[in-house]
Formats: sequence, structure tokens, C-alpha cells
Amino acid sequence: MARILIKGATVLTMEKHDAVFHNGEVAIAGDSIIAAGPQGCVPKNFIAEHVIDGSGMVAMPGFINCHTHASMTLLRSYADDLPLMKWLNEKIWPLEAKLQPEDCYWGAMLCCLEMIKSGTTTFADMYFEMDEVALAVEESGIRACLARGMVGAGPAAERAIEENVKLVKDWSGRADGRITTMFGPHAPYTCPPDYLKRVMTLAEKYDAGIHIHVAETQDEIRQIEEKYGMTPVQLLDSIGLFDLPVLAAHCVHLKQEDIAVLAAKKVGVAHCPASNMKLASGIAPVTELLKAGAIVGLGTDGAASNNNLDMMEEMRIASLLHKIATGDPMAMPSFKSLQMATSNGARVLGLGDVGMLKPGMKADLILVDFQRPHLYPQHDLIAHLVYAAQSADVDTVIINGEVVMEDRLVLTIDEEEVMSRAQESAFRLAGR
Amino acid sequence: MARILIKGATVLTMEKHDAVFHNGEVAIAGDSIIAAGPQGCVPKNFIAEHVIDGSGMVAMPGFINCHTHASMTLLRSYADDLPLMKWLNEKIWPLEAKLQPEDCYWGAMLCCLEMIKSGTTTFADMYFEMDEVALAVEESGIRACLARGMVGAGPAAERAIEENVKLVKDWSGRADGRITTMFGPHAPYTCPPDYLKRVMTLAEKYDAGIHIHVAETQDEIRQIEEKYGMTPVQLLDSIGLFDLPVLAAHCVHLKQEDIAVLAAKKVGVAHCPASNMKLASGIAPVTELLKAGAIVGLGTDGAASNNNLDMMEEMRIASLLHKIATGDPMAMPSFKSLQMATSNGARVLGLGDVGMLKPGMKADLILVDFQRPHLYPQHDLIAHLVYAAQSADVDTVIINGEVVMEDRLVLTIDEEEVMSRAQESAFRLAGR
Ligand SMILES: [Zn+2]
Ligand SMILES: [Zn+2]
Repeated sequence: MARILIKGATVLTMEKHDAVFHNGEVAIAGDSIIAAGPQGCVPKNFIAEHVIDGSGMVAMPGFINCHTHASMTLLRSYADDLPLMKWLNEKIWPLEAKLQPEDCYWGAMLCCLEMIKSGTTTFADMYFEMDEVALAVEESGIRACLARGMVGAGPAAERAIEENVKLVKDWSGRADGRITTMFGPHAPYTCPPDYLKRVMTLAEKYDAGIHIHVAETQDEIRQIEEKYGMTPVQLLDSIGLFDLPVLAAHCVHLKQEDIAVLAAKKVGVAHCPASNMKLASGIAPVTELLKAGAIVGLGTDGAASNNNLDMMEEMRIASLLHKIATGDPMAMPSFKSLQMATSNGARVLGLGDVGMLKPGMKADLILVDFQRPHLYPQHDLIAHLVYAAQSADVDTVIINGEVVMEDRLVLTIDEEEVMSRAQESAFRLAGR
Repeated sequence: MARILIKGATVLTMEKHDAVFHNGEVAIAGDSIIAAGPQGCVPKNFIAEHVIDGSGMVAMPGFINCHTHASMTLLRSYADDLPLMKWLNEKIWPLEAKLQPEDCYWGAMLCCLEMIKSGTTTFADMYFEMDEVALAVEESGIRACLARGMVGAGPAAERAIEENVKLVKDWSGRADGRITTMFGPHAPYTCPPDYLKRVMTLAEKYDAGIHIHVAETQDEIRQIEEKYGMTPVQLLDSIGLFDLPVLAAHCVHLKQEDIAVLAAKKVGVAHCPASNMKLASGIAPVTELLKAGAIVGLGTDGAASNNNLDMMEEMRIASLLHKIATGDPMAMPSFKSLQMATSNGARVLGLGDVGMLKPGMKADLILVDFQRPHLYPQHDLIAHLVYAAQSADVDTVIINGEVVMEDRLVLTIDEEEVMSRAQESAFRLAGR
């Protein structure tokens, strides 16, 4: 890990709205940021081994994708425009049943490749064959928070717990500290309270957080209400789940009391607007969650229901969706979406050292090339990032102090191989 | 204009859903398509001067942007996240009042540049200083349907009519036939019936269509209801406007009867989902319009309210928006959005010879590079185009038989000059 100096870039630290420094600079030593801000902020005695010319670019924290299923990238555009249960029963689950470890590896590699190319530097994942996902994370150079997705019924329930414990033991802190782990009980409607309590005990024992789907569909609300006479949030709260660090994906259908609970218990909410729209699940009350003080980040969900892993698009859709949902053009202004995609995403994942550019934090940052017709004229860079930029504008990606992409070339991955191996896996699984 | 042969591409003609030909071919002579389809469809005696290797790419009709205001590209990200009237009164209108012809030219050039780079081959425009826009169209090589935006009250009302007549006389059929013209009365709430009737007489005289904003906001509905006791659609229908060829932008707030009128009178509707979401105007009942048999295309609206001119994004947002709006994940499947962006867009503009790849039609087509991580694995190309692709994947653009972009390099425009001149204009106008 080298000593890197980025010069001439517009530096957007995300510490606050007006922390935008034209012709600014960033210094990196090892895996950490030494300085980031206006010209002159880097100590005079800092000697760089690698100087990056950032002129015409914006240097900012990499995106944090708070909820996805990496290996499902193999299922991109495999089944679309279908009702949820038909989609799951006839398409997604039968294909998932055939997945081999190697398939999951290539799916995860394709996911990491796409994420790096679109400026994502950290993601939170929940799936199975997590050793394969961890390998892909280790090799690709990205940062990730990994959980084994567990369904708390049927013959696989015990094995899932064992595998999650093994994931936590084997991979926490690995890959130069880029990998953290969580427990991944799938959802309140697939994991009964007793099972969740066992998971909570293990999470406490291993000092890990919990990644779970919560209140995604109206159908889930109905099921939980019928069975327990409560909302999913109330159910989880009643067993003490939210007293642990929790990453709750979706949170679409919430009562006022649920919003209060999520905010009070500092639950990290992963808002997935594109997936929720595509599956017609509903619109999460994100403006109310934010008003209540909840911690909200953005996630793409898996590529089977998005169908990309593009956080710039996710920001744009978040702002547009909440304006139309509230009837208020001032709702979800650009800076709020940008916070969800960076600094607040880090809080959702419980990572204190990424999501902003400031001394002492991990050096996870991207350079976005603003010398593009669709980013001119440059009245407002933050509005540009959210409303006009596209992920192909990301030029350089640095993760944990390592240059992982330069001039759009990913240095850690053989792109051609990953695309063709993923295609082979996917076509074999689809019987093509 | 050369004789061009495209080989090895997957050809998507847009004639119908299954008109997808792997390893297909397209032949172009002069400004027209000779053949497009499966391998072997090109006559054996066709001699090409220019052979394009389309392997790994999808060849398809260029996008048709049914509603924009090209010169407003100067106002991209100038003012966002504001209430509509404050946005117009304090930001947009004061700046527009300062626009000089040269500003409009550079704004329009920036617009044409961005559109070509994102695969748009035709756009419908309504603004002022339309000579400047026409020049930009002529020079950039794009196809356009131009109207002078007219407000039918105040001192500028007469001049606007004169300028629109002049636009129609001077520019119809110019630029090798790439330019068509319309009359552009702004909206029913800014143009009283008498004024509209005068415009209709002129439109008939010059055999031109009419481009008008209709039922964009709830406020407009209220104003027209108070003044005339009708909906905007009823008002326009009552004066016979829809007996002429009409391009109606937005059509957000419609009653059932309005939908029936628009369908029966074959009005071309330009649906602008991103703009409607960003300004929180409302959600157009597009699934109902389509069910009623109405002709619906997609538009980006101006970059001041979008903030880009990206038709791939507009397709994606259209599909996502109507799924969530109807609660039906089957609503607006990918092929329908693709039709709105291509073949149906052509119908909205009254252009019979673009929007599909078939013999005799104008050679307006694009090559989309599918050798990208976010477009793997390739289960479904149409779903990929709508849900996963991004406009930076467009590799080659051919308009009217001319190669306008090759390998992402626009051959007709000096990109650097356009970006810097547009920036100069914009910053002068904004007083920066
Ligand atoms: Zn999920
Ligand atoms: Zn408009």
C-alpha cells in the first residue's frame, strides 16, 4: 500500500453540505486518509509515491450498497415483469436450488466487478455459499459486510446457523480488514421467534450485527399480523432484536409506531427503491424515517430485481420517488440522497471508518470524471451527482488505500473471464 | 452518404417483440435502410463501402425523445429541489429573460451532443430562438421536430406567432430532410382559445402539427376548470385542436373521458416520467392510456427538470414508476417502455419513417455494446436494455445514413468547445 496524493480534484468530503473544495487535495498512507480538503490541507512533509491528477474530477467517498445478494447477479434479467410469487416459485427458487459453489463465486465476482466499475466500495450481502462471496471480496479488493442468509424452518435451518457461525469465525477481519460479518436471518416471516432468539445469542457471543429483511411486502404484514397480532417491527422489537446492531432491509410498510421504534433503537435501514418499485412492493416512508431521526442508507437489492447494482441510479430514483410520493418537490433533496449513499450507508452497516473523507478514516474513495456533456454546465456538483451523472463517469476507485480501478480499468479482476464464466454458469443453470 | 453494412450484431428491429436476430445484419444505402434482420437478409449484390463489425452489440432504432427544450440544457442543475412556482419565478424565468441567441445555440449544441452520446436520434423541441436550435440540429447531424414555444398573451404573443411561421417556412425539410416543424402554443393555461384558433388555422395552412403542454399540474387543471368549466383536454377538444396532428406533452392529470378523447383523436402523448417525478407534478395514467389505445412516447423534458436527456433512464423510470403506481409488477413490461422510446415515439411525432429498422425507413440506428459487466449474463436483451443498460453503453450512432458517433466519439461536434462555450454562457447568465 502506497502513499498516494490526489491533486486538483474537487473534493467532496460528505462531512457537511458545503464541504466542497475546488482544486482540493487528498493524501493517503497505507489504508487510511491522512488529509482531505482544500489546497494546502496535506502536510508539507507528505511524500507521495503515486500522484493522481484529479483535475476535472470530483473526489468523494465511494458508495456503500447496504443490501444486496451478490451471487444473484447470475439471475439478472432471467425473469422480469412477473407477479412476486410466480417470479419466486417458478423462476428464482428453482434456479437457486441448482446453484453450485462455483456458480456463486462467479456470480459474486461479476457483482464485485460491476460494483467497482460503478463506484461502490462497500456492500452488505446476505446469501448462501458465503465462502465463495468472501473469496470474491478478497480477490476483487472491495469491502463487504457478509451474512449467511438463514431460513429458520426445514432441514436447512440448522446447517444455515452452523455456516453463519463458521463465516463469522473464518472471515471476520480478513482481507486486510475489508471483510466484516453479520448474522443473516432472512426475515420475520421465514424465521420464527425461537430461531431468531438463538441467532441473537450467537450474535452477542460473536459480537456481530444482524442483517434481516423487514416489512418488505403487504403480504408479510398480513402473515405476521395473523400469526402474532403485531407488525414485523413490533414482533422483532418484542423479542429484543433491536437491542443488537441491526441492518433492516426494505422497511416498506411501517406504522407510525414502527418508525418511532426504528429511530429510537438506531436500527440501520437499507432503503431499496428500485427493487421495491420493480416488484411493486410499495414505497418506504423514508422522508418520515429521516424526520424521526432514523439511520437510512441505500441498497440495490439483488440484480434479479433491479436489474443492476448502480448506486448513482439508486440515489436518483430515491430522490425522484420521494418527491412524487409526498407530492413535495423539496422532498429528498440531492444532498440527502448522497448522504444515504455514502456517510449514512456507513452508519447503517455499523462501520465508523468509511463513508466520509477525513483524516484517520479508511481510504475508500472514487474520482468521478465531470468532463462529460451531461455534466455541463457545472452549476451544482451535488445536484449533478444525483440527478445527471451516470456510473460510467466513475474513473478511479481506491479501496483501503489500494487503487482498484484506474481510468475505468479494474486492476484486480480479469473482466473478460468473469463475464464469460458467469455467462456459462447462468446458461447452464437456465438450461440453455 | 455511403453504403454501410453492419455485420454480426444482434438486430432488434422493434417491429414486434420477437424480432430479435442474433448474428443479424443491416444494410444502409444513402439515408435509408435496405435490409435489417437475420443473417442473409441483405441482398447478395449489396456492395458496402463501410463495414461495421457489430459483434457483441445490439443494433436497434435510435431513441426518440418526444419532448424537450434543448437550449434549457444551460440550466441543468441551476435550481433543484424547489417548489414549482418559486423555481419558475425566482430561478428559471429570470435567467431565461437574459438568454441571447448565442446562448441558445450553445445550449442546443450541448443538448444535441448529450443526446447523440446517449443514443437519441430524433427529438421534439419547443422553445424560442429556434433558428439557433435548427442550426445546432443541422450541424450535429441529429433529426428534430422543432416548434416555437408561444405564450398567447402579452406583447410577445404576436412576435411568437410570426417567428413560428418563419420557422416553419425557413426550416421544414431542411438539413437533408432531418428537420420537421410544428407550431408550439405553450399550454391551454397560457394560450387562450382565440389564440389557439389562430395557431390552428396557421397549422392547417402550413400542414404542420401542434406541440403543446397539456394537463401537467393540478394547478393547471384548477385554473382551466375555474375559467372554462372543463378539463384542459375537453377545452382543447372543444375548439377542434385534436382534429389536427397534436403532440401533447405530459398529460398527467386526466379523467376517464380525457383518456378516451386522446385515444380516439389519435393525439400523440409525450410521457415525461422523470420530470413529473422531480417536480412532483403527478403520475400520468399511462397504463390506462395504452389500454385505451392511445399513442404514447417518452420525453425527458428540459434538463432543468430532469436533469439529463437520457432516454435509457427514462425507459427504466417509466417501467418502475408504473409498476409502483399500479401496484402491479407486470405493468409496463420492458418491451412496452422500449416501444415508447422508439417505434411509438415516432408515431407521437407523426414520423412514419423512423423508430423501426425495416427496408425503406430512414437509417436512424444505434449500436449498444453489450460486452459490459452490468449486461451479463445475457438472459434477456430487452430486459437488459430497459432495466440494466446505461446510455454510456451506446457505441455507435447512425442518423439519416450518416455515422454521427463511432466508438463513442461524436464526429460532427467539437465536444470540448461545446462544453466550454455552454459553461461560459451559463455562468454569465447566472452571474457567476
Ligand atoms: Zn434482499
Ligand atoms: Zn416542457
